[in-house]
Amino acid sequence: MDIDLNADLGEGFGPWRMGEDEALLDIVSSANVACGFHAGDPVIMDRTVRMARQRGVDVGAHVGFPDLMGFGRRQMQIETKELVAYVLYQLSALDGMARTAGHRMTHMSFHGALGNMAAADAALAEPLVRAVADFDPTLTVSTSASRAIEDAAERCGLRVRRTFLADRACGDDGLLVPRKLPGAVIHERDAVLARVRQLLEDGTVTSVTGRKIPMRVHSILLHGDTPGAVELARAVRGMVEQAGRVVPISRQST
Amino acid sequence: MDIDLNADLGEGFGPWRMGEDEALLDIVSSANVACGFHAGDPVIMDRTVRMARQRGVDVGAHVGFPDLMGFGRRQMQIETKELVAYVLYQLSALDGMARTAGHRMTHMSFHGALGNMAAADAALAEPLVRAVADFDPTLTVSTSASRAIEDAAERCGLRVRRTFLADRACGDDGLLVPRKLPGAVIHERDAVLARVRQLLEDGTVTSVTGRKIPMRVHSILLHGDTPGAVELARAVRGMVEQAGRVVPISRQST
Amino acid sequence: MDIDLNADLGEGFGPWRMGEDEALLDIVSSANVACGFHAGDPVIMDRTVRMARQRGVDVGAHVGFPDLMGFGRRQMQIETKELVAYVLYQLSALDGMARTAGHRMTHMSFHGALGNMAAADAALAEPLVRAVADFDPTLTVSTSASRAIEDAAERCGLRVRRTFLADRACGDDGLLVPRKLPGAVIHERDAVLARVRQLLEDGTVTSVTGRKIPMRVHSILLHGDTPGAVELARAVRGMVEQAGRVVPISRQST
Amino acid sequence: MDIDLNADLGEGFGPWRMGEDEALLDIVSSANVACGFHAGDPVIMDRTVRMARQRGVDVGAHVGFPDLMGFGRRQMQIETKELVAYVLYQLSALDGMARTAGHRMTHMSFHGALGNMAAADAALAEPLVRAVADFDPTLTVSTSASRAIEDAAERCGLRVRRTFLADRACGDDGLLVPRKLPGAVIHERDAVLARVRQLLEDGTVTSVTGRKIPMRVHSILLHGDTPGAVELARAVRGMVEQAGRVVPISRQST
Repeated sequence: MDIDLNADLGEGFGPWRMGEDEALLDIVSSANVACGFHAGDPVIMDRTVRMARQRGVDVGAHVGFPDLMGFGRRQMQIETKELVAYVLYQLSALDGMARTAGHRMTHMSFHGALGNMAAADAALAEPLVRAVADFDPTLTVSTSASRAIEDAAERCGLRVRRTFLADRACGDDGLLVPRKLPGAVIHERDAVLARVRQLLEDGTVTSVTGRKIPMRVHSILLHGDTPGAVELARAVRGMVEQAGRVVPISRQST
Repeated sequence: MDIDLNADLGEGFGPWRMGEDEALLDIVSSANVACGFHAGDPVIMDRTVRMARQRGVDVGAHVGFPDLMGFGRRQMQIETKELVAYVLYQLSALDGMARTAGHRMTHMSFHGALGNMAAADAALAEPLVRAVADFDPTLTVSTSASRAIEDAAERCGLRVRRTFLADRACGDDGLLVPRKLPGAVIHERDAVLARVRQLLEDGTVTSVTGRKIPMRVHSILLHGDTPGAVELARAVRGMVEQAGRVVPISRQST
Repeated sequence: MDIDLNADLGEGFGPWRMGEDEALLDIVSSANVACGFHAGDPVIMDRTVRMARQRGVDVGAHVGFPDLMGFGRRQMQIETKELVAYVLYQLSALDGMARTAGHRMTHMSFHGALGNMAAADAALAEPLVRAVADFDPTLTVSTSASRAIEDAAERCGLRVRRTFLADRACGDDGLLVPRKLPGAVIHERDAVLARVRQLLEDGTVTSVTGRKIPMRVHSILLHGDTPGAVELARAVRGMVEQAGRVVPISRQST
Repeated sequence: MDIDLNADLGEGFGPWRMGEDEALLDIVSSANVACGFHAGDPVIMDRTVRMARQRGVDVGAHVGFPDLMGFGRRQMQIETKELVAYVLYQLSALDGMARTAGHRMTHMSFHGALGNMAAADAALAEPLVRAVADFDPTLTVSTSASRAIEDAAERCGLRVRRTFLADRACGDDGLLVPRKLPGAVIHERDAVLARVRQLLEDGTVTSVTGRKIPMRVHSILLHGDTPGAVELARAVRGMVEQAGRVVPISRQST
C-alpha cells in the first residue's frame, strides 16, 4: 500500500515565517495549509497552493481555533454550531484559493487543540466532520488515530487518511500524548527513524507504556520547523521508498 | 428594466450587531455580505446567507480592507498582489459558505476605502477585477458609477451592476463624494426619496455642483443602520414597484 | 455603609457600540472599562475615561481573554504565566490612558470567562491577583463573591470590592451560575429590583435552590446593554439612595 | 559625545520570532520594543523588558499602525485624533509592563509607515509628539533625522535622540529613502561599516545623490533580523568603542 507523506505548511503570518515550506514541498506528497485562524494569511495561502501545484503536492485545509497568538494550541470552549461555521469558513477559503490557482483541495485536517479535542470527543467530532461532508463529500479527513473522528467520517461517508506522527508519543489507545506532557515530543532523530521503520516493517508503534500496538496508517506526518527537520524528512522519505511504499503524486492540478 | 434593491448586510462582528438585517432582507433583492475583513465573522456570514436564501435574496461578497477597527473605511497602501490575495480569500469564504447553505454567490462588490480607491484608479481596479474573473467568470461586479471598475469588468468579461447610492452625494464625474466631506451623506428622508424619484423618472442625478448628470443604474443601495433606515428602504421599494420596475427574485437557491 | 454602583463600560469595538455608556455614567459611581482584548479599543477607552472623569466616576480595568469574536465569554486554556502578561498589559493600557486624561485607575476586575475561571480556581486566582498587586498595590479588586479571588487579594494586600450582580442567579456557594445555564440571567425588572431590596434590607440573596444566603457587598453591578436597562439602573440607584446608602463620588481626577 | 546603540526588538508575535533579540541585547544600549500593534504581544514584551533590565539596556515603546499582517509598514489613513489614542495605548502598555518588571521606559519611537508619515508631515508629527509629552514629559523621542518630528519635540519640551540608520540610504534632506525604492536598504556589510566610520570620523553621511551631508546623531540603529546582522552589530559596537564614543549603560532599573 502506498504511503502518503504529509506536512503542515503555510504556518507563517504576515512578516513571520515558520518552517521550511519550499524544502518540504520537494519531499511530501500532501500538505495541510493553515487558513488564517491559527496561522496563515491570504498571501501565504496563495503562495503555498501555487508552490504545491507546481510540485504535484495535494493540498488540504488545516482548520484551527481563531487564536493566532496561541497558534491554535490552546483549548477554547466554543459552541459547536459556531465552531461548525469556523470550519466551513476555513474550508471555503482554502478551497477557493486553490481552485483559483488551478489546484484542487483534496483533504482537510483539524489543527492543534481543536484536533485534540475532536479526536477525544465523539460529540464534537460528529458535527465538525459532518460540516466537512456538507461542504464537499469528496474530501478526505486526515487525522492521527482517533476513534471519534474516524467513526464520524464513516457515518458521513468521508474517506479517512490515518496519519502517523513519527515524532509524537502515543498512549495505549493510540491517541497522541498532549504536547505539554514530558516525552510527548520525540526529539532524537534516531528514535524518530526507528519508529518509522517499526511502522513500515511491523505495522506497530510502541506506546509510552512500552506496549506494542498495531498502527495501520496511510500517511506519515513530517515537520519542517526544527533544526534538522528537513534532513529528517528526507531520511523518512528514503525509508518509505526503500520499503517499496511509493509516495503518490497528485493528479489534482487543472 | 428591472431595478435591483441592494443592501450591505452581515456587518456585525462577534457580539456586535450593525443594522437591521432581517428587516432589510424582507425588502431587498440582493445583499452584499461582509467576509470577516472589515466586518462579519463566520457565524454571521452563515446566518446571513441562510436568511437570504429563505427569502430568495441574492448574496455577494462585500470585499474590504483587513481593518475591523476602522470598518474598512480607512485607506491602506497595500501591494496590489497582496490585495489580490485578500480579494480571493474573501470571495472564497463567502462562496463556500453560501454553497454549503444551499445558496449561491452571484456577485461581489468592493467595500469602503477599497471601493473608493479602486473606483478612482484604473491601475488598481484592473488587477482586482481580474482576480474576481479568475475566481468565477460568472460573477457580477456591483459598483457605484466608476469608469475604472466598469472598464476593467468589461475587459475581464464580467457583468457590471451599476448601483445608485441614494443617500450619497456625487460629483460631476458621477463618483461618490468622500464620506468625510461635508454634504457627502444625505440624511433627510425627503431628499433621498426625491433623488430616487428623479432617477426613476428622469434617469438623472443632481451632482453637488447642481448639475444634472445622466445616471443609468441597475440597482439602488439601501441602508439599515440608521434610525428610520428600514422605513426609508420600504418607501424606496414602494416607489420602484409603483414605477413598474419590478424587483427581481433570486433563482439561485439549490 | 456606602454602596458603589458599578457598570461594565466601553464595550464597543471600532464602529460597533454596546450599551448606553453615557446614560449609565450619569448613574454609576465606578466603571469597569474594557481594554481591547475582549472589547474596547484605544479610541473608546480614551472617550470612556474622559467621560468618567467629567462625571466623577472611578475607572478600573476590565481584564479579559484575547477573544473579541467571543467577547471574552469563552474559556481559553492559557498558561498562567502568559495570562499574567495579558493581565499586566491590559492594566497598563487603561492606567496610562486614564492618567493622560487627568484621571486615575482605582480598581480592576476580571471579565467573563476569565472572571468565572479565576473565581472558581484558587490556583489561577492567586497569580492573577498577584500580578495586579505587582502592578499597583493600591488597586482594589472588584469581584462577585469568590473565596478564591478574595483570599488571593488578602494575601497580596489588595482591597476587595465585592459586587452584587442583581440580574444574575447564584448558587448556594454564592458563585454566579454560568451564563449558559437556564435561569442564570434574570430578565424581569421586578425580580431584579426585589433582589436589590432584599440585599439592602436583609443583607441576603436567595440562591437558585431557594436558600437565603448572607451577602455582604460593597457594590452593585448595573447593565446598560438591554432594553430598559438604563431605566432599571436608575431605579436601583433610587432604591440605594432611599435606603440611605450614599453613592460615592470619585476624588481621583487630577 | 556618547553614542547610543539602538535596536528594534520584541518583534515576534505569538509563536513567531523575528531577529536575535538576546544576542542584540548584549550589544545595544537601548531597545525599541513593539507594543502589540504591528508586532509584539504581552508575553514577548514582558520577556523583552526583563532581559533588557538584566543587561542595563534602556527600553522604549516602538509605536506603530494596527496592522500585524503588514508589520506596520503599510500607510494607513487614520484620523489624527484616533492615532493619538493608538499612540497613548501603546506607550501605556509598555510603560506599565516595564515598571512592573522593575524597569523604566525612557524613550519612544514611531515604527515603519507611521514613522515615515510623521517624519515627513509636520501636521501629523505635532499631535503625535504632543501625545507623547502628555503621557510623560520626561520621555525622549528617538527618530531618524526629521525636521517635523524634531521641531514638534522641541515645542513640546521633549528631548530628541537622532538615530543613524546605518543600512538605510537617505536623500539630500536626510530623510530615509522609502523602503521599497531600489537601493533603500544597504545590504553589503562593508558599505554599512564604511558609513558608520564616515559618521564617526567625519560627522557626515553620503546621500543617494552622492552629496555629503552633515549628520549629527546621538544613536546608531542596529538590526538583528538578517543573516550576519548580529555579527555586523558587534562590529559597529567595536568601531564606536574604538572611536572613544562610549556606549552608555542604563541606570533605569529599580
